[in-house]
Amino acid sequence: MSRRLFDLTSWPAPQPYRLLTALVVPRPIAWVSTVDASGVANLAPHSFFTVASADPPVVQFTSVGRKDTLRNIEATGEFVVNLATRALLEPMNATSASVAPEVDEFDVAGLRTEAAERVRPPRVAQSPAALECELHDVVPVGNSFIVLGRVLLAAVDESVLDGDRPAEWLLDPVARLSGSRYVTYGETVSLSRPE
Amino acid sequence: MSRRLFDLTSWPAPQPYRLLTALVVPRPIAWVSTVDASGVANLAPHSFFTVASADPPVVQFTSVGRKDTLRNIEATGEFVVNLATRALLEPMNATSASVAPEVDEFDVAGLRTEAAERVRPPRVAQSPAALECELHDVVPVGNSFIVLGRVLLAAVDESVLDGDRPAEWLLDPVARLSGSRYVTYGETVSLSRPE
Repeated sequence: MSRRLFDLTSWPAPQPYRLLTALVVPRPIAWVSTVDASGVANLAPHSFFTVASADPPVVQFTSVGRKDTLRNIEATGEFVVNLATRALLEPMNATSASVAPEVDEFDVAGLRTEAAERVRPPRVAQSPAALECELHDVVPVGNSFIVLGRVLLAAVDESVLDGDRPAEWLLDPVARLSGSRYVTYGETVSLSRPE
Repeated sequence: MSRRLFDLTSWPAPQPYRLLTALVVPRPIAWVSTVDASGVANLAPHSFFTVASADPPVVQFTSVGRKDTLRNIEATGEFVVNLATRALLEPMNATSASVAPEVDEFDVAGLRTEAAERVRPPRVAQSPAALECELHDVVPVGNSFIVLGRVLLAAVDESVLDGDRPAEWLLDPVARLSGSRYVTYGETVSLSRPE
């Protein structure tokens, strides 16, 4: 191989960030709904999203900087992660706009809310799967914040269940790449785990 | 929609974990190389992998339980994240076997090592991109550990660069689903970010 070396200790921001968004791919999308203290809803996609603990179940997303989503979670202790599917790509992208805190992104993107079971923030009615979360912790790292949520309940539409379990091929997730790019679900390969 | 509700506060382990691995998809794979205090190399894939901070650049992966990778990082303060591509799917999967700490997974999977620039753990010679990291912090969450690494240097093969930047379509990443499934790179969709 012929390698190009990028020294991330001396390269000025935002170059290192751009490089990482092209290499840590494809990224699942947490489409996070929250409410502020007065009940106004907020909805925004976050693509640094993963599982932080298997037992108890804890998920996390990274807030780059302090945004409405993080402020609302700090105020209320609750959020919902809605899953982004190919069918929802356009409205999901529409909710990535920077708008004033009092603007409800559900309206902006033409989405309907659906009451959650365990928390105050609404679910995205059109999303086939939602994770209702209670704030576990916020961990500051550099200019960002890891937001950890204990998953209380998963609300999954019957249309994406294969027997008792959600099936990825029915969910048809979209994932984030760098720049303005998303990637759709490709081909599935099954490999048994070695002994 | 007709929702099925999964109460994750009362459902016994490992059911909640299995549900999350089917919903948080597709997951990028951190193929992590480390060395122990005596220099024996370890290599293992971790699919709870994301960016924890934009500036300075910090990546993270979740270790479910305490495994060789985490022990080595605690002992040496260093690791390399190699990126997993479709061409490397079989050897990458082979390194997910549970083997004794003294076994070198590079040998097991028929992979070659390549010296890193800034850290002692070797890179996977066949992987087109590697992030050389210095331990930033380990955050315990439930039965798991978030391992945070400051990215010092990225070593990227010229074959996956488009001009000055890595290109996802050249990288051809594979991502993790639930069970024994992986997913390949699908179709790219570009959507401009709204105003």
